[in-house]
Amino acid sequence: MDYVLKKYQRKFDYSYTLGAFPTIELLKNKPDKVIEVIYHPDLNSEEQYDILTSLCSQNKITLRESKKDVEKLRDKDNCLCIGVFSKYTMEIDSLAKGHVMFVNPSDMGNMGTNIRTCMGFSVNDIAIIEPAVDIFNPKVIRASMGAIFRMNIKLYTEFDQYRSIISNRRIYSFMLEGATDLQKLCRDKEEKYTLVFGNEASGLPSEYADYGQSIFIRHSDKIDSLNLSMATGIALYEFNR
Amino acid sequence: MDYVLKKYQRKFDYSYTLGAFPTIELLKNKPDKVIEVIYHPDLNSEEQYDILTSLCSQNKITLRESKKDVEKLRDKDNCLCIGVFSKYTMEIDSLAKGHVMFVNPSDMGNMGTNIRTCMGFSVNDIAIIEPAVDIFNPKVIRASMGAIFRMNIKLYTEFDQYRSIISNRRIYSFMLEGATDLQKLCRDKEEKYTLVFGNEASGLPSEYADYGQSIFIRHSDKIDSLNLSMATGIALYEFNR
Repeated sequence: MDYVLKKYQRKFDYSYTLGAFPTIELLKNKPDKVIEVIYHPDLNSEEQYDILTSLCSQNKITLRESKKDVEKLRDKDNCLCIGVFSKYTMEIDSLAKGHVMFVNPSDMGNMGTNIRTCMGFSVNDIAIIEPAVDIFNPKVIRASMGAIFRMNIKLYTEFDQYRSIISNRRIYSFMLEGATDLQKLCRDKEEKYTLVFGNEASGLPSEYADYGQSIFIRHSDKIDSLNLSMATGIALYEFNR
Repeated sequence: MDYVLKKYQRKFDYSYTLGAFPTIELLKNKPDKVIEVIYHPDLNSEEQYDILTSLCSQNKITLRESKKDVEKLRDKDNCLCIGVFSKYTMEIDSLAKGHVMFVNPSDMGNMGTNIRTCMGFSVNDIAIIEPAVDIFNPKVIRASMGAIFRMNIKLYTEFDQYRSIISNRRIYSFMLEGATDLQKLCRDKEEKYTLVFGNEASGLPSEYADYGQSIFIRHSDKIDSLNLSMATGIALYEFNR
């Protein structure tokens, strides 16, 4: 695939991993999507260089040194290695026990963190309801520490589109005004589930209370709400019990 | 108290709240520590202005407009209000049910987030083992969203210094190689406790396993560890059960 060496824009059909760590995750998990890997002459970690060389050579991927190109694409001076890859679409595994759904996520750093949190609790399937942050933005990829390349993430225009395809499970909507305290939730531990979280600032639209069981996470009244990452992590921790 | 209008440095015996939100929290919770409040002519939220005026007048605190001074002290263009306050020391409440201890925390943003997370789960007493981040750095204050002004935070040079004063409780040390799974921990729910967390990068020194019961939080083997904020939030959630 051809690409133009320019700072990332959402409309591109390719994107970048900025930094050695996400680039290595890309090479390990999606080698067939990689266009090339570029490193900066200042990359002085022999270990990283050896891993990059070995993964690129195994997969017949160009690995080249270019100070100019890395400096053109990167956003931070400490980024010394960049992977260029074709964007791709993924399918959610309808048989997976747990799904997580994010409705209208808007913050790139949070999105990346949340992808990593899902992986940390063995949920590999994420549904996103649009409008949403661009999951292939290099900032999302970096915040996920490359976890995005191990996950199945699918975008839907609305909840019903997801529900019409994925019907074999219970829906739990996390809302400040949820009906059930997460710590008191009684559920069939064998049943498949989808945990649904709203936008960082505005939360879930009220109709989500009707799509399934609405849940709240108890906290002190000195804060308005837990942040989205924390709510996601605590919910996943509880559902892994 | 006199102060010199200069960008914050750790050695100062005063500090700043950068932004209206933490300044209001400062005025509400520690009015006797406030030296003065300065706002920028661009501050155009009438609601914020009214709250600042009312809190300053109640507490006989100078509130003055100065474009130059705000611009000199702030680190971001969207900061339109600054509180100047004398640093103070706090005492931990030995009768409080739950304490949290952070050993050698080094990241200012994480420290602030963790202070807020503690408040969100009704823990108001935090012990910090030095060396540690400067808790009065404006970046910590901002990340805490002003929660720091509602908390009791005390610095100790070592664990034994805390333990010699605060002896009436069980110690739970959170470590990757902890002996007990948090989800399987059996404990006397009436007993007072201290939850101990290590540095963001290096975790807790191994001797902490001997200071109390060592605990791990189960996660998938695809990640090395949960981040410190997440571990703190999940542990507090579980201990609030």
